[in-house]
Amino acid sequence: MDVRFINPFILAISAVFKTMVHMDVKVQKPHAVTDPGTRADVSGVIGFSGDASGCVVLSFPTAVACQVASAFAGVPIDEKHPDFSDAIGELANMVAGNAKKDFEGMNISISLPSVVIGRGHTVSGLRACPRLAIPCETPCGVFEVEVAMLVTKAAAGASAPPAAVSVA
Amino acid sequence: MDVRFINPFILAISAVFKTMVHMDVKVQKPHAVTDPGTRADVSGVIGFSGDASGCVVLSFPTAVACQVASAFAGVPIDEKHPDFSDAIGELANMVAGNAKKDFEGMNISISLPSVVIGRGHTVSGLRACPRLAIPCETPCGVFEVEVAMLVTKAAAGASAPPAAVSVA
Repeated sequence: MDVRFINPFILAISAVFKTMVHMDVKVQKPHAVTDPGTRADVSGVIGFSGDASGCVVLSFPTAVACQVASAFAGVPIDEKHPDFSDAIGELANMVAGNAKKDFEGMNISISLPSVVIGRGHTVSGLRACPRLAIPCETPCGVFEVEVAMLVTKAAAGASAPPAAVSVA
Repeated sequence: MDVRFINPFILAISAVFKTMVHMDVKVQKPHAVTDPGTRADVSGVIGFSGDASGCVVLSFPTAVACQVASAFAGVPIDEKHPDFSDAIGELANMVAGNAKKDFEGMNISISLPSVVIGRGHTVSGLRACPRLAIPCETPCGVFEVEVAMLVTKAAAGASAPPAAVSVA
């Protein structure tokens, strides 16, 4: 995977969680995903298309997802609450949208989010399109963000990769 | 949801399953999805973006997914086989790509597919973007295709909706 796409996601996770969830996220070093991938209970999935095709998946254990969704919504909500999926979907949407603005020189748009709920599920992609996982630590537990991006067109005026950001 | 998008999916499901899975699919009448939606064991998820944002989810019970993936791959594969996710992801990709060609006058592209594996999971979207479910009957069992599409831009030169197709 083109690692230039990773820094925008690292910055987006930190920014969205800080401003919208009021939570500091300590982003760990990204690593390649090996099948079948991490098991999760709640995942927010959103696609990218245009000059690059891609996918980002925010994967949570139930307890972390409930605390994150509650902090985002401003009221306590659990996985059975009618606002729960909307909160996780909007969060995926915000992370994707925030990262996208840093895909410099590329015309990329984002799809509608989907929210998967089911204990111990996996979310994988095509083997031809490797994914990188970004482990994230919060005060209420860990979650993971998986990213796959595949450049489909040479981007006009594509600039240098964004400056590196440090991870723990 | 703009129902003009549904006929291209109905046609795409029939065409892709006939030519690539060598299976006749009897498409039932689409209906609105009410939360939390149908439980599935295997789902192929793919996003759309551009003049419209959207998402399509192919949701299978395990036994149906294994038979469909095996017929698609031409060799018996089950959900633990390394080619299983690729088969379900490629199938979602083909249904989305085949439907997209009939979104007349709209510039829409598709994301990378994701494949969810986990017994009894649900895949939902934002409540502001209603989904339609297309129930599908095959000789090896039933599966469901859920579609959400939201027009984000007035499409230049958009033509009349495609001709209606009849469903069982």
